[in-house]
Amino acid sequence: MYHDTPVFPRGFRCASRNVGLKPSAKDLTLFASDVDAAAAAVFTRNHFPGAPVILGRETIKGGTLRAIIANSKVSNVATGLRGIANAKRMATAAAAELGTSANHVLVSSTGVIGVPLPIEKIEKGIVGIASELQDDPMVGAEGIMTTDTFPKAISSTVGNSGATITWVAKGSGMIEPNMATMLAYIFTDAKFDAPTLDRLLRAAVAPSFNMLSVDTDTSTSDTCAILANGLAGEVDEAEFLEVLRDGCVRMTETLARDGEGATRLIRVTVKEAKDANEARVVAKTIVNSPLIKTMVHGADPNVGRLLMAVGKCFNCTIEPLQTHAWINGFPVVARGERLEFDDAVVRETLSRKEVELEILLGVGDGFARAFGCDLTKGYIEENAAYYSS
Amino acid sequence: MYHDTPVFPRGFRCASRNVGLKPSAKDLTLFASDVDAAAAAVFTRNHFPGAPVILGRETIKGGTLRAIIANSKVSNVATGLRGIANAKRMATAAAAELGTSANHVLVSSTGVIGVPLPIEKIEKGIVGIASELQDDPMVGAEGIMTTDTFPKAISSTVGNSGATITWVAKGSGMIEPNMATMLAYIFTDAKFDAPTLDRLLRAAVAPSFNMLSVDTDTSTSDTCAILANGLAGEVDEAEFLEVLRDGCVRMTETLARDGEGATRLIRVTVKEAKDANEARVVAKTIVNSPLIKTMVHGADPNVGRLLMAVGKCFNCTIEPLQTHAWINGFPVVARGERLEFDDAVVRETLSRKEVELEILLGVGDGFARAFGCDLTKGYIEENAAYYSS
Repeated sequence: MYHDTPVFPRGFRCASRNVGLKPSAKDLTLFASDVDAAAAAVFTRNHFPGAPVILGRETIKGGTLRAIIANSKVSNVATGLRGIANAKRMATAAAAELGTSANHVLVSSTGVIGVPLPIEKIEKGIVGIASELQDDPMVGAEGIMTTDTFPKAISSTVGNSGATITWVAKGSGMIEPNMATMLAYIFTDAKFDAPTLDRLLRAAVAPSFNMLSVDTDTSTSDTCAILANGLAGEVDEAEFLEVLRDGCVRMTETLARDGEGATRLIRVTVKEAKDANEARVVAKTIVNSPLIKTMVHGADPNVGRLLMAVGKCFNCTIEPLQTHAWINGFPVVARGERLEFDDAVVRETLSRKEVELEILLGVGDGFARAFGCDLTKGYIEENAAYYSS
Repeated sequence: MYHDTPVFPRGFRCASRNVGLKPSAKDLTLFASDVDAAAAAVFTRNHFPGAPVILGRETIKGGTLRAIIANSKVSNVATGLRGIANAKRMATAAAAELGTSANHVLVSSTGVIGVPLPIEKIEKGIVGIASELQDDPMVGAEGIMTTDTFPKAISSTVGNSGATITWVAKGSGMIEPNMATMLAYIFTDAKFDAPTLDRLLRAAVAPSFNMLSVDTDTSTSDTCAILANGLAGEVDEAEFLEVLRDGCVRMTETLARDGEGATRLIRVTVKEAKDANEARVVAKTIVNSPLIKTMVHGADPNVGRLLMAVGKCFNCTIEPLQTHAWINGFPVVARGERLEFDDAVVRETLSRKEVELEILLGVGDGFARAFGCDLTKGYIEENAAYYSS
């Protein structure tokens, strides 16, 4: 059950400050557990991972975290050996605040690529942050925002287990996960060991964050980490996974809704593909098509574009005569042909805040759902002048 | 040598009319050879090819064409068996005008997907068009425009052979060839048989039209055809191919320059990839990245995005420490790190009408060049309301 106002699981707190990376907005955030937590994480597959990702892959091998320290504005990517050294200094500074060791601190940086991390500002600005740790996850969510228009945190109970899961994330642009300029942190007081957490995290991320695309671009900083401090004791694994996965989907939809410039959430469901992999390819292709995204943005029922987008999946099994499509449940294509329909009805359906596109391929039992958003002038505005702004 | 004003090779003419598909602009175009011409063509790989493409694949098997008949506004795609019948009626109507047979006429339709072709308007409107055939390829180029902002035709002599090659094309959006909402017709009076033409066409299309992407979306109507009527006699094959390929690249750049909403041509050159295929993947990925396209549009030297885009080629061999990048010859990345540079200089370089992005991967000898354009509010405007406009 989701809370109306997000709360932390017991033993987790956060603090957020401006340390001078941005003019005045918060730019440094600390998430901390009172006790050591089992932990797992997945990172971007980009060939140019940021220094924090390179360091994080080592850190997470230990399977234990006490804290996450994250800055916005500068991503510490393409910064060479100095970048790695700076990420380590950031971990050390956070560890000193909490009286733990640097290898129990996960570091994230998000922002511009290729600019040296102002580590002195961070080391100076972090001093005393531990005394500001408090209970509201939204404070941490605010501190990691870049072009996000609102902070993102949700929390849920896990059945009657007494445990809580809390998701804190940022998204916006450069988002085609595996993963995205997406930082997603998940906190729970349920008790699991690190290998189990890793398995559960991957199972939850596959149909959620990994099916999100704002703009086909894959960030160099994406990180999704889960910390389980065990303070609520053991919890049924299947029940936990169900809540974990549902919350990840919910947060994925929140990220899509707040994609750069976005005005609508697009959900694409592909059924009866040859297999799950082809279903994912088709769903991602549709959600990424600029002509689908602009069609949704304009609420313009140019539904032939759905067939175009399905049809450009060259390596998938597509049988035109078996292909059907719906928009918000309204049939628009049958057996590969555009249906006659009431233009006004489909226009209304496309102009909702959430648009469901459904494709049935009729060639197998593969299923997938992808999440995205419309493409607007706002995206162009934000990204034609991000660096200098 | 390219002509300042395009001309047809001997024996080719065209005519263009409004037959009522559009309010007043030309919407039907006939290209004709005085005599039978050897012919070859390549078509979209989209799984939902338009009826004219389905028919055209059969027609081209004969290896002989007398004419091309093309309409704009309605693409005759996703229109089922009736669509095929209508495409055949269109070929028959054009053949009657020229006193040839329908299987010597290639049909193209471009425009909205999923709307029935108004075949009666075409059959009625085509009558007498043969009497209007004239010598200016630009007249034909005008007749096939959709969202193109200018008609596109070029012509070139083939060395001193006495032969001419003329390219007439339309482009704009839904362009990630194999092929694109691209219609490209090539006419020559050089003499080649159909199998040779087919080989030459494929060799010329691979590094040109097939490396063009306006928006990653692959049209259901793309067609590139070549007609050789032999009136200039035999021509050295290697010499002909060189001119053919160069003209295809030139026309590809023209299409990119006039991509929907585009203000700049982007050329991406990838060198020293593992092999030619990986070079093509990386070049296409860069030219298609919304964050690269908006960076160029904004002339904003956020060059880290180049590394992001290279890095998201998950299945390619990328060695960060061997990766270098240049913008219009100006070094911006060396050994995977962003270089210090004069912001104003790179900004100036990005604000040119033609932007060259060059990536050196240092892992092999694969080479590729891709062609694209910037992403602007104009693209959003055109495509958020294309169907209804």
